[in-house]
Amino acid sequence: MSNIANRKIIKVKDGSFTKTDDILAVEEPIEISLSMLKADPPIVNKNISITMRTPGNDADLATGFLYTEGIIFQNHQIDSVVLGLNTANVMLNNTEPIDLSKIERHFYTSSSCGVCGKSSIDSIKTVCKIVSESKPLLVSKEILHHLPKKLQAKQEIFDQTGGLHAAALFDYSGNLLYLREDVGRHNAVDKLIGAAFIENKLPLNQHLLLLSGRASFELIQKASMAGIQFVLAVGAPSSLAVELAEEFGITLIGFLNAHRFNIYCGSERVVGS
Amino acid sequence: MSNIANRKIIKVKDGSFTKTDDILAVEEPIEISLSMLKADPPIVNKNISITMRTPGNDADLATGFLYTEGIIFQNHQIDSVVLGLNTANVMLNNTEPIDLSKIERHFYTSSSCGVCGKSSIDSIKTVCKIVSESKPLLVSKEILHHLPKKLQAKQEIFDQTGGLHAAALFDYSGNLLYLREDVGRHNAVDKLIGAAFIENKLPLNQHLLLLSGRASFELIQKASMAGIQFVLAVGAPSSLAVELAEEFGITLIGFLNAHRFNIYCGSERVVGS
Repeated sequence: MSNIANRKIIKVKDGSFTKTDDILAVEEPIEISLSMLKADPPIVNKNISITMRTPGNDADLATGFLYTEGIIFQNHQIDSVVLGLNTANVMLNNTEPIDLSKIERHFYTSSSCGVCGKSSIDSIKTVCKIVSESKPLLVSKEILHHLPKKLQAKQEIFDQTGGLHAAALFDYSGNLLYLREDVGRHNAVDKLIGAAFIENKLPLNQHLLLLSGRASFELIQKASMAGIQFVLAVGAPSSLAVELAEEFGITLIGFLNAHRFNIYCGSERVVGS
Repeated sequence: MSNIANRKIIKVKDGSFTKTDDILAVEEPIEISLSMLKADPPIVNKNISITMRTPGNDADLATGFLYTEGIIFQNHQIDSVVLGLNTANVMLNNTEPIDLSKIERHFYTSSSCGVCGKSSIDSIKTVCKIVSESKPLLVSKEILHHLPKKLQAKQEIFDQTGGLHAAALFDYSGNLLYLREDVGRHNAVDKLIGAAFIENKLPLNQHLLLLSGRASFELIQKASMAGIQFVLAVGAPSSLAVELAEEFGITLIGFLNAHRFNIYCGSERVVGS
C-alpha cells in the first residue's frame, strides 16, 4: 500500500482558482496483534491495538509499539511479523505467557484503570524502562543546530504532502541513522524504535532523537524505553514531557533550529551550557 | 488547575547561553466517566476514556467526547458534569440503558474489534451522524482568507507557549463563536463541539470549523457528528480525511492562509470556484 495518494484539487491563490493534481499523505487504520504458537495454550492473533497510521514500515511500527509499551523486551523474542492489508501480526517465540495487563494502561476496559487517582506520572508511565548505564554523552550546540536541516533534506513524504510527522535518530556526531514518517507522531517514534530494536541496536544511549513537531509525554516515555538520553524537538514540549524527561535524566531541547534552541532539562550534556 | 506552567530554562541563541523563565502548555491525563443514577440498576462512575489533555474546559471535553463518540445525542440527557482533579464524571438523566459498545471502536477489548477486515471507512466511522438538512451554505474566499488571523489573535495559550492545537468555530460571515485549545487536536475539537452541545447549538450546519494544524480522519468524523459542513485546516489533510469529507458532503480546505488555500472537496460552497 502506498504512503501517498493522488487527488484532484482546486488551488486558490491571489484570487484565482486553478484545478490541479495534489499529493496527500495516506492515513489508514492498522490492527496490531501478536501470536505465541509455542505457548501452552497457544495464542493466535491476539489483538493489541488499532491505530491510524501511514502505511509503510508496518513491521517496525508493530514491533516498536510492543516494545515501547513494555510487552516485549528482547529482539530474539520475535520470530517474524506477518503483514496483511492493514494488519500486522507479531509472531513471538515465547513459550511462557506474557503480561498483557500493561496494554490496559492505554485502552478502555470495563474495570477502573486506576490512572487518575494517583499522581499522574507515576501511574501512567510504562513500568519497565530499559536499564541503560549512563555512558557520558556530550554534544556541541553546533551539531544540534544542524540536525533539523538534515532531517528536512530526507523527509520524503512530508516533502510531497506537507502532511507528516517525522522522527529521526542521529549518532552523537550528528549522522542520520534512521528516519521514519507518519501521520501520527507516536507512530513515527514507534517505527523508528522498532527498526532499531529489530536490528538489535538498543539501548540507544549514545544517540540523539529528533522530533519534527512538539514533544509530548508519550514521546518522552517511548524514548526512555529505548534508553535514549537526548531528545530534541522542532516544536514546543508540554509540561509533562519536561517533568518526565527530568525524572528519567533525559536532556530535552525544544524550538530547535539553525540559530536557537531551548534547553528544558539535562543541560549538562550540551557542551558550553 | 492551570493550563500553563512556569519553568526555568536555558535559551541558546546565536551562540550564547542565557538562563531565563519560560511558559509551557500543561499536559495532564483526564479520566472521563459517566453515571446514570436513575437507571435500574444505577450506573456509577463508569470509566469511558483516559486521554492526555490540557486542563481547562474539562466539562466541554467530556461532553463533546461522549457526543462525538455517539454515546449521547441530546443536550437534555445531561444532568451535570462533576469535575475532580483530572476526572470528569458526566451525570446523565437516562433511565434506560445506553449502548456502550460504540466506545469499543477506539479501545482495545479482548475480542476482535473487526475494524481492519472491512473497508476502512465503513468500519471505523461512528454510526450515528447527526441528521442535518443541508441548508445551502455559501462562503466567499475573502472571508476564508481572514480566518487564520482571527484565530491567531485569540489563541492565548499558544501565544504564551507555542505548544497547542486550536479549533475555532465561525459563523458563515466569519465571526468567531468558539475557540478551544489543547495539546491534543482531537481534544480541542471535542471541547469546541461539547461547548456548542451544552448550549444546544447543534447542528452546526451554518458554521465554519477552523483547525490550527492538519486535518485527520478523526477530526472530520467529529465534525460530521456535529453537522458541520465546512472544515478548514491551516495544515494538510490526510487521504482518509479527504475520503470521509467527500462521503459526508463536507467541504474540506487545507493550507489556508491570507493568500491561498486548497479545496479538496465540496468546492460548490466556495463562491467563485
